[in-house]
Order: sequence, then C-alpha cells, then structure tokens
Amino acid sequence: MKQIIVVRRDLKMSKGKTAAQSCHACLGSYKKSDKEKIQKWENDGQAKIILRVDSLEELLKVQKLAILNKLPNYLVVDQGKTELPPSTVTCLGIGPDEDLVIDKIFKDLKLLG
Amino acid sequence: MKQIIVVRRDLKMSKGKTAAQSCHACLGSYKKSDKEKIQKWENDGQAKIILRVDSLEELLKVQKLAILNKLPNYLVVDQGKTELPPSTVTCLGIGPDEDLVIDKIFKDLKLLG
Repeated sequence: MKQIIVVRRDLKMSKGKTAAQSCHACLGSYKKSDKEKIQKWENDGQAKIILRVDSLEELLKVQKLAILNKLPNYLVVDQGKTELPPSTVTCLGIGPDEDLVIDKIFKDLKLLG
Repeated sequence: MKQIIVVRRDLKMSKGKTAAQSCHACLGSYKKSDKEKIQKWENDGQAKIILRVDSLEELLKVQKLAILNKLPNYLVVDQGKTELPPSTVTCLGIGPDEDLVIDKIFKDLKLLG
C-alpha cells in the first residue's frame, strides 16, 4: 500500500514550502480515503512517496488519471501568502491504495528527489 | 490555529525526503489531536508551518517542551531504506493548537525555508 504526492517542480518551491504543501495533499487525500484501505496502509508502514511533474498541465493530467481510476485524490491550491501568487495549484495527493494499482497507473512519474 | 512540523536540517535531506517525513509528522500528530481542536484548525485554514532545528538534541528538547505543555506530538523515526541510516529521528509534528499557545512556547524556532 502507498500514498503518492505529486509536486509541481516547475514552481521551484523551497524545502519548507514543498513540505507544507505535501502535508496538505497527504491529509486531504487521507480524509477522502476508504477506512479499510487506510487501516491496511497503516499496518503496512504507511508509505508516502513524493513524485514530481514539471507543469500544471501535467499535474491535472495525473489528477484525471486518478479520477478515471476512482482513486481518492486531493488537489492543493495555495492561498499565495508567501512564495507563490494566490490560487497556485501546487501538488496532488492520491490514495493510499494498493501498490500494484498505483504503480501501474502512475508508472511514468519520477521521484521528486 | 496551527500545526508545526520541526525538521532536522542537519540531516540535509532532499526536498522529497523532507516532504515525506513531514507528512508522517503531520498525520501522526493529527491523529493524536483533540477532535474539537482539529475542527477549529480546519475551519481556520489548517495552517502547517515547517520549522527547523540543527541537531537531534535540539529536536528532543522541542519534544520535551511539547510534552511539558501537554501538546499532542509525534516523533518520526525513519526506517532508513533510502537516504538515512536506520532509526534516524527526522522530525516532529506538534498540534494543531492555538496560535498563541504554539507561538509562545516555540518562539525561538525558525522557518525551514
């Protein structure tokens, strides 16, 4: 089981900003997820994998894939009080769900690093 | 209302690693928090602030302060499968709680940036 968080690398957010936005995505998708899957994920070490895209368009394509595959997901829109303009879409949380499901659908996404 | 996540900067974790560890801290402390405070925090924009320390000792001092002040908190210990040695303590989630309470107790901590 794993949750993935897909971050827009093109925004060049700082480490702290990236972490805060990822936390919004993590909690947002967690709250939309099935309780049984959450339980399984928690028993399984609750892996959270941070991946990257390089544009808003790419991120929205990833969200479409999540929706098509009926995966719980949460898009983070920043208020724009610090590093970014208001209403910037920063990242997307998906799952948790089965490794096999996530890996198959999102196999082209790379780690943020 | 705010939640704070205090990260060990001395570990020089990558952006992705920092984000994943912060997500563990965020969710861990969230799950230990009072439901009324969570509701208030969520209504209030659920601020998550990423702060820094420069050693394990500093992080454990921050945790002591949280415990002394009866704040829910969650210390993250990494399994050490990627960037770090096994059982490395990476960060600490605290709250959510009132801004006034958090700001007073942890006023010396700086943003991770």
